[in-house]
Amino acid sequence: MDAYGLQGIALMPGPSLFYLTGFRFHLMERPILALFTVEGKAALIAPELERPRTEGFFPGYLFYYGEDPRRWPEVFHQALKAVGLTRARVGVEPTRLRFRELRLLETAAPRATWEEATEVLAELRTRKDEEEVEHIRRAVAVAEAALKATLAVVRPGMTEQEVAAELVLQLLRHGSEPELPFPPIVASGPNSANPHAMPTDRVLQPGDLVLIDWGARVEGYVSDLTRVFVLGEPRPEWLRWTRLVEEAQAAACAVARPGVPAGEVDRAARQVLAEAGYGPHFLHRTGHGMGLEAHEPPYLYSENTRLLEPGMVFTIEPGLYFPGHGGIRIEDDVVVTTQGCRVLSTLPRGLQPIGRE
Amino acid sequence: MDAYGLQGIALMPGPSLFYLTGFRFHLMERPILALFTVEGKAALIAPELERPRTEGFFPGYLFYYGEDPRRWPEVFHQALKAVGLTRARVGVEPTRLRFRELRLLETAAPRATWEEATEVLAELRTRKDEEEVEHIRRAVAVAEAALKATLAVVRPGMTEQEVAAELVLQLLRHGSEPELPFPPIVASGPNSANPHAMPTDRVLQPGDLVLIDWGARVEGYVSDLTRVFVLGEPRPEWLRWTRLVEEAQAAACAVARPGVPAGEVDRAARQVLAEAGYGPHFLHRTGHGMGLEAHEPPYLYSENTRLLEPGMVFTIEPGLYFPGHGGIRIEDDVVVTTQGCRVLSTLPRGLQPIGRE
Repeated sequence: MDAYGLQGIALMPGPSLFYLTGFRFHLMERPILALFTVEGKAALIAPELERPRTEGFFPGYLFYYGEDPRRWPEVFHQALKAVGLTRARVGVEPTRLRFRELRLLETAAPRATWEEATEVLAELRTRKDEEEVEHIRRAVAVAEAALKATLAVVRPGMTEQEVAAELVLQLLRHGSEPELPFPPIVASGPNSANPHAMPTDRVLQPGDLVLIDWGARVEGYVSDLTRVFVLGEPRPEWLRWTRLVEEAQAAACAVARPGVPAGEVDRAARQVLAEAGYGPHFLHRTGHGMGLEAHEPPYLYSENTRLLEPGMVFTIEPGLYFPGHGGIRIEDDVVVTTQGCRVLSTLPRGLQPIGRE
Repeated sequence: MDAYGLQGIALMPGPSLFYLTGFRFHLMERPILALFTVEGKAALIAPELERPRTEGFFPGYLFYYGEDPRRWPEVFHQALKAVGLTRARVGVEPTRLRFRELRLLETAAPRATWEEATEVLAELRTRKDEEEVEHIRRAVAVAEAALKATLAVVRPGMTEQEVAAELVLQLLRHGSEPELPFPPIVASGPNSANPHAMPTDRVLQPGDLVLIDWGARVEGYVSDLTRVFVLGEPRPEWLRWTRLVEEAQAAACAVARPGVPAGEVDRAARQVLAEAGYGPHFLHRTGHGMGLEAHEPPYLYSENTRLLEPGMVFTIEPGLYFPGHGGIRIEDDVVVTTQGCRVLSTLPRGLQPIGRE
């Protein structure tokens, strides 16, 4: 905090609060917020019903409120006063802090300022230690085992949604925590041309391309993989695209090592596809960091000058998309080592035939 | 909007945007926002990769951006300008709008104001039509069937987490959408005294009280139920508490009808428990509205003067909690009819023995 000129941070329930305190909350409409100061003071604001599992456990001042929302502003004011943040520069997480809690903070401490603190928390969370990498590796293993079990039952005639439901079942059965990192994508035929497709009631046809993007969660840490399959015989252009995407992925892996800008990994993948004349068909960045969240820093887009460090974990997932026709994406999870990078996933990357008896 | 003095609303992905447009988005770190004006203009701000499923489908102006976050402010400005909201009073959802999108809006339109619009959207969403009630009834039926299948395999020696995992599996198998309304609560022995317990690795013991709070999702709509069980013979005080909670619940149902303040339903339940001398052991409000969200208006707390209307759907879930010992909660989902209220759940409410061969 000191290095960023902040006197405190205000955290909503989520991965950073879990990382710092081990507490998870089921956040709904009632405000829940934790304050931490550079001097080491802490305070928690929570509904009365969270008292049993926080009183005596949360390391700081505790401010509970009952069912009447009119008491919220007063409780926020007391908490900010207790930790001495009523006139401070306070860091917040831009994708976690909600309008409700921000307005309560602003009302309770009109002279404080609230600033994006993505970097402060990223500093803490991006370099994974060995135990964290092991959780991620297990989340990869669970995802891979679940996919194999799912592929064994995929047949023409099933819908994308049915395949996705089976995959969710298998993820849980193989040991994923129920809170999956994201709902699996199962995109068949032309739907695979949409990088963010959601499973539809489209029925799988013989000869279809099927793209699956899925992940598991173990001890809070996630995995995130993508593979492409074909229900029968692949078309020659699909094999060509898949080989290109594999090459792009290998090129990205080859440059990932400590000291290299994140953008360079993206450019390495992009260059392979551009040189083959497919630049405009690669619609997104090459990857994103992952850990307690499915998407977290570092983000692998061309302009990102952030230098890679040992322990960073991210996806490498180039893809080619042909609207109305189909798409190919191959996604693996890698960890930056002292020398280069290590791929945590083990599944084959090529276009694989499925659905045979 | 007009009645609330708003010229527009700004919606993040979530139930209200789904309710208005049918669009669901997988929201992560990239901003996604939709603007709607009182004159009927609309605009969507989304990452480039959402183009395939929104272009030609979203009814309004479309503003896409690439992978470089530095372009976000410009795109927000263009969108606000296109729909004429740069100097407007704009409603937002306090538990959906994030710090990231709020700051982008504030920067793009420094002369606009951003106000809580819970009521505007609540107006649209709280009175469910017949089709919506039918989705909720199906979500209740899925939850009930999944619980029955789970109870058949619960035995002493299983952990709370194992029971919860089995229940999640059964929810999916019986037809719930994978995005459950909330992770099921399985709280055994003294853990049941915590109204917001999360499943732990505590091993179920013979004679344990087991509280299960769970729900399913069908067509986006949720159910939310709670029942209590005993692994063997119930203690006499547990039976007494359960009868009291049942009475409190029946009293609350009996007063719920159009024109009655939401607070009165809460007070009816509370009075039964207070008169029996257990007032301080009822730690939370009596219930909450539900629909596309697990918690939405109307909230049943004593001070709430909002009048009930036909089509409102909410939980009625009184409970008694004895720290260090255990807790009893019974939760059903009801819909307000023209005459009174109809209970959508069918499971018996008493303390039920489980775990017998």
